[in-house]
Amino acid sequence: MPTREQQQGYSRRSFLTRVGATGGAGAMFATMGALGLAPSAEAATKVPFQPPSPSDFRLRGRGAAKVLVLGAGVAGLAAAYELGKAGYDCTILEAQDRVGGRNRTLRGGDRLAEMGGATQRVRFSDGQYMNAGPARIAQWMTTMDYCRELGVPLEVFTNSNAEALIYNESAGMKAPVKWRTAKADVFGYISELLAKATDQGALDQRLTATDKERLLSFLSGFGAIGSKTSGYAYTGTDRRGYTVDPGAGHQAGTPLGPPPSLSEVLASGVGRSFSFEFGYSQAMLMFQPVGGMDAIPRALARAVGHGKIKTGAKVTKITNLASGVRVEYVAGGRTKVAEADYVIATLPPNILAKIPHNLGAGVQAALSTPVPAATGKIGLEYRSRWWELEDNIYGGITNTDLDLATIWYPSYGYNDRRGLLIGYYNFGAAADTYAAMTHEQRLTRALNQGAKIHGDKYRKDIAASVSIAWKRQEHIEGGWISWPSRGAEYKLLNEAQGNVYYCGDWLSYEIAWQHGSFESARKVVSELHQRVLKS
Amino acid sequence: MPTREQQQGYSRRSFLTRVGATGGAGAMFATMGALGLAPSAEAATKVPFQPPSPSDFRLRGRGAAKVLVLGAGVAGLAAAYELGKAGYDCTILEAQDRVGGRNRTLRGGDRLAEMGGATQRVRFSDGQYMNAGPARIAQWMTTMDYCRELGVPLEVFTNSNAEALIYNESAGMKAPVKWRTAKADVFGYISELLAKATDQGALDQRLTATDKERLLSFLSGFGAIGSKTSGYAYTGTDRRGYTVDPGAGHQAGTPLGPPPSLSEVLASGVGRSFSFEFGYSQAMLMFQPVGGMDAIPRALARAVGHGKIKTGAKVTKITNLASGVRVEYVAGGRTKVAEADYVIATLPPNILAKIPHNLGAGVQAALSTPVPAATGKIGLEYRSRWWELEDNIYGGITNTDLDLATIWYPSYGYNDRRGLLIGYYNFGAAADTYAAMTHEQRLTRALNQGAKIHGDKYRKDIAASVSIAWKRQEHIEGGWISWPSRGAEYKLLNEAQGNVYYCGDWLSYEIAWQHGSFESARKVVSELHQRVLKS
Repeated sequence: MPTREQQQGYSRRSFLTRVGATGGAGAMFATMGALGLAPSAEAATKVPFQPPSPSDFRLRGRGAAKVLVLGAGVAGLAAAYELGKAGYDCTILEAQDRVGGRNRTLRGGDRLAEMGGATQRVRFSDGQYMNAGPARIAQWMTTMDYCRELGVPLEVFTNSNAEALIYNESAGMKAPVKWRTAKADVFGYISELLAKATDQGALDQRLTATDKERLLSFLSGFGAIGSKTSGYAYTGTDRRGYTVDPGAGHQAGTPLGPPPSLSEVLASGVGRSFSFEFGYSQAMLMFQPVGGMDAIPRALARAVGHGKIKTGAKVTKITNLASGVRVEYVAGGRTKVAEADYVIATLPPNILAKIPHNLGAGVQAALSTPVPAATGKIGLEYRSRWWELEDNIYGGITNTDLDLATIWYPSYGYNDRRGLLIGYYNFGAAADTYAAMTHEQRLTRALNQGAKIHGDKYRKDIAASVSIAWKRQEHIEGGWISWPSRGAEYKLLNEAQGNVYYCGDWLSYEIAWQHGSFESARKVVSELHQRVLKS
Repeated sequence: MPTREQQQGYSRRSFLTRVGATGGAGAMFATMGALGLAPSAEAATKVPFQPPSPSDFRLRGRGAAKVLVLGAGVAGLAAAYELGKAGYDCTILEAQDRVGGRNRTLRGGDRLAEMGGATQRVRFSDGQYMNAGPARIAQWMTTMDYCRELGVPLEVFTNSNAEALIYNESAGMKAPVKWRTAKADVFGYISELLAKATDQGALDQRLTATDKERLLSFLSGFGAIGSKTSGYAYTGTDRRGYTVDPGAGHQAGTPLGPPPSLSEVLASGVGRSFSFEFGYSQAMLMFQPVGGMDAIPRALARAVGHGKIKTGAKVTKITNLASGVRVEYVAGGRTKVAEADYVIATLPPNILAKIPHNLGAGVQAALSTPVPAATGKIGLEYRSRWWELEDNIYGGITNTDLDLATIWYPSYGYNDRRGLLIGYYNFGAAADTYAAMTHEQRLTRALNQGAKIHGDKYRKDIAASVSIAWKRQEHIEGGWISWPSRGAEYKLLNEAQGNVYYCGDWLSYEIAWQHGSFESARKVVSELHQRVLKS
């Protein structure tokens, strides 16, 4: 039976060889890049960006324009920062009393207000913090480059940990399992099954004899399964963990076992969690700024200049003019007016949709199209790091089908006395459930749910807690937005409307990531700058 | 067809239910622990250890004894540290001019001598370092507890990284692939194969209808494969990576593809690398002390007291006496004699086998049994962190079948200007090959091999380099040892021989890990202390 490639009339390797013979090494490498094997493909090309520069104006007789940036979140700060490199006169209007937008790190002494709810006073100890918004950065993201450029020190964010847990209550699991145990069992059983089928000839239409040999060799190691004579049976492996660790002398260690049955492993649904960590944006290694994610907006604000950022300035009207834009805003209880050549509006679309403007019904309809997403977190400061001391969990995330969705163990302060868990980071209906509660109710529910995973100790020794429901955060009202489709509305807002530009992660393909905010800011800055240069 | 459990006469869940019914919740949890599902099994029990305490002597009329510890590596330092808690009078004799043994961190200004070779002067920049010996700590290891107790700050050691590479030259790979790409392709194809076989009924003897449904659902997500109508085909996924990253506006990103064929993926052997990260000792998350692994022996030495450590003291004879032990050693060119109640000998067995003693032919044969292992590393300091800037590799390990075995990207100093790679960390024949060379030859070979993976840039902008071949390190002569079997010799040396105790990772089940050294030290300290209390 020919392989798929032979059926197509060529094998890929021979195809490459032919390209190499006729096109030279360069052509071969370009082709291999397209197929994912060549060094040229090893790191994706970043979307190109050339920051505006004062020298851009030198031979053109043009000067930098005046720009009002609405919103001091990451997108607004980045836009002002990049425009500032070329001498643009930027002013940022920010409704809140701080910069960063959803990039907010909560520390002891902070106050967290909630629409229609009580204001929480944050009582975390010195050195403990909670990234209430974005909390992780993938290596390929532009955010990494801004951290480099701005001198924001980075450390590993522990997005995956073999020692963290998986717990699916609805699947009937009576207790959590460690990721390492779940992987050992799932990989063991699927290796057993595939080895059996392969050996029995069930896949002979898809596999050559050599393929089969290689596949069986791979499965033997991947699944830690038995030999052919044992039926390739998976019967456990020390990859699952130990009940008593290997030690000195004759303490060889007691491997954890035997594994649950194949049916039980499949029924537990633990395997559903695995593909999370293959995602392009979620695969380890991931990173965080040392000391809190707000190091990024803080560094941006310093670079922009605090004098150019008006906090406590809530935009109430946007009027596109024949030349320029007029923005009304309320600050200190009084309505004020600012004018500029251009506006870059980086507020969430659901907030912009509430602000009167003269850009027409199409823009208004477009701003009203994206749907704000519910999400929330609770931070739990414990007086001891029991997850490290008792459970060997030094960071990482526990995944569960409880309405907590995830429990995050801290990626900083290892081996310190105190530590801060994220007791839930959830979405959708689960986030709505918690959002509807008072903080005390959220805390009680989160602890009772978490105790199903960690036992009674989970309820004890809590020093402080804070919860955030992003839909109840004034001036933001959502964790992020989703587009029903990236149709005409998305296209419209990605174009300048008169002298108004829209900007933010919500106008990118990486919504809810700072990368999306940075990329959108770069796009808008480039477009605006080109327009100014040509005007 | 009954399942395996039904054949055995019970299903596991019903077995648990029965235990629960008759034994109460406690009995059920204990059973589930044994089966790997209960919280009690979530973290392995550490081998129990109660440090000696002065109060142990209070009611017994005994006093702490005098102990000579041979070797100031981790085992020796830990033994002296623990005995010191109860007031034992310990002296450590160390042949080298520093503590730590194989735990050695090389920094600018250090000198690295080599038996039969030239002495290298280390010229790394400030802040750059190379852990020449141990470099990673698993969360479950006792080493973590010593870091806590001694106040050694920890950070993540990046043992696995989706952005790092796999390159198998002997398999005909023309270029490396990223781990993320290799995993996407291998998991995609094995999911396709297993889904096909399952759907075709090839595994009906092993799978119930419900099992099949769950398995197919799992494979769909795990492999990112097509639907039943597409034959469950794997045709690529954005988990492989992108050639152009997702960005703003209409830049959706260009996924890397198409994947190589199933036969090519199998032939490449990339899947062989995967199980490394499932290992109980190698699974992420892993950790390292901030600033260099030698923070551990330094902290131990401070706690022991530098006055109790004689460096430059090479043991030349060990004489067990009717009461006590006499040790001859050479220091400052003169032979000296020390006597104590007990000796704890923590030198490598291959070194101890060269030191005359009166413990008999059995002990001598036992000391000569373990086989020293070759291993080596080269540290390459570059003037730029091109792996971060150009390849998005912020830490982690590239795996290759070249004689480099592995290339390690640094787990510290992210986004700094300079950085230090481990250009090879290899074993066995490959390590012997490099060990036989001068440093300059090693450097040239390592760069030429590495350039196969990273291209010409790998040879450029090197600021400094240092290489170590552990078999050529005086007083150590090996990376670690292996036991042909843990037979009578292993048993003999794990028992006190007269007043002499042997101790080290080589007398544990975690050879080549500091955990093994710590555990062995704890075992010997406990045994010696019990003997003193009973004497």
